[in-house]
Amino acid sequence: MRGSLIVISGPSGAGKGTVLSRLDTIYYGLTRSISVTTRAPRKGEVEGVHYFFRSDKQFDEMLSRNEFLETANVYDKRYGTPAFYVDKLLSEGKDVVLEIDTVGALNVKAMRPEAILIFLAPPSFSALKDRLVGRGTESEEQISLRLSKTAEEIAKAEKYDYIVINDEVDMAAEHLRSIIVASHLRTVNNTDFIKDFMRR
Amino acid sequence: MRGSLIVISGPSGAGKGTVLSRLDTIYYGLTRSISVTTRAPRKGEVEGVHYFFRSDKQFDEMLSRNEFLETANVYDKRYGTPAFYVDKLLSEGKDVVLEIDTVGALNVKAMRPEAILIFLAPPSFSALKDRLVGRGTESEEQISLRLSKTAEEIAKAEKYDYIVINDEVDMAAEHLRSIIVASHLRTVNNTDFIKDFMRR
Repeated sequence: MRGSLIVISGPSGAGKGTVLSRLDTIYYGLTRSISVTTRAPRKGEVEGVHYFFRSDKQFDEMLSRNEFLETANVYDKRYGTPAFYVDKLLSEGKDVVLEIDTVGALNVKAMRPEAILIFLAPPSFSALKDRLVGRGTESEEQISLRLSKTAEEIAKAEKYDYIVINDEVDMAAEHLRSIIVASHLRTVNNTDFIKDFMRR
Repeated sequence: MRGSLIVISGPSGAGKGTVLSRLDTIYYGLTRSISVTTRAPRKGEVEGVHYFFRSDKQFDEMLSRNEFLETANVYDKRYGTPAFYVDKLLSEGKDVVLEIDTVGALNVKAMRPEAILIFLAPPSFSALKDRLVGRGTESEEQISLRLSKTAEEIAKAEKYDYIVINDEVDMAAEHLRSIIVASHLRTVNNTDFIKDFMRR
């Protein structure tokens, strides 16, 4: 059976990394895609393992051939999710998780309506603020910038299929697992079963 | 939070009763609705516990007021799922399970698009035949009638949201649980959360 394409977004501080790590301990077979990037490899980064490293010209060519599920600019570098690689993993029966922002997520959904969009939300605005302050890695100004971006992001959550509130990591991971297990049971993934059954 | 309306159908011999009993041991809060019927109470049956017993005239009145999510005739008696009772349970936050046939299920979906339709299927045609023969409660003729009805029913499974194959009872119950847990996380059930978050 083809795997499910799972897209996870959420504001910084929602705990995506922590919840996804916990999910890996209770659900096997979740695979990360590999992004295409125009930035140079850093020390130790391997082509086809950490990224697919491409020139700006190559990236443009891929864009013109509609080969990305979504792209994003970070400073003057470009990143994209290559459709061919995601499709390869899905056809191998692997569930593919993309951890991308809300703009990218909605692009993926437009290209692949069967993709499952999950918004991971902090339990409340004040809880998010506490987490960001608690990290102690950012200035007050940076934190208030993040918080105002969060309000924008949460507004887009309405377009997602699911909202998982990360109040407690184990519970949030369990909720993600349920969504993924259920996704395999969707009728669209079982049409072969129906056909086989009818043929007897 | 409002509960989920879960509709389960499947051919006779698919194991609905067994799987739902197993589900009750791993998932709490699943509530059965109570049907309205025009048949007379049997010994020990209590109004509002086993059925809502109504006259044919009362049933007609309920029909004319569009008070049923679905109805069915069994011999000359009528049965119906009362919307008011299902709504009461859902608004109390209970998940309501309706175990009804495919015609009824598609009627419920038409009235309540948020209902989740799950088709519980036997693993194969031959497995189903073996189960029915193994029960030893029906004649060969009755069994072959059931099997031909099953083919009709499976064809309707394409209109369901999910197909759960009852190959192994524990797994099938676990799959139902995942579908129900995931249903609570649907964005449509979390719009209040988004609003509260935005208000801060």
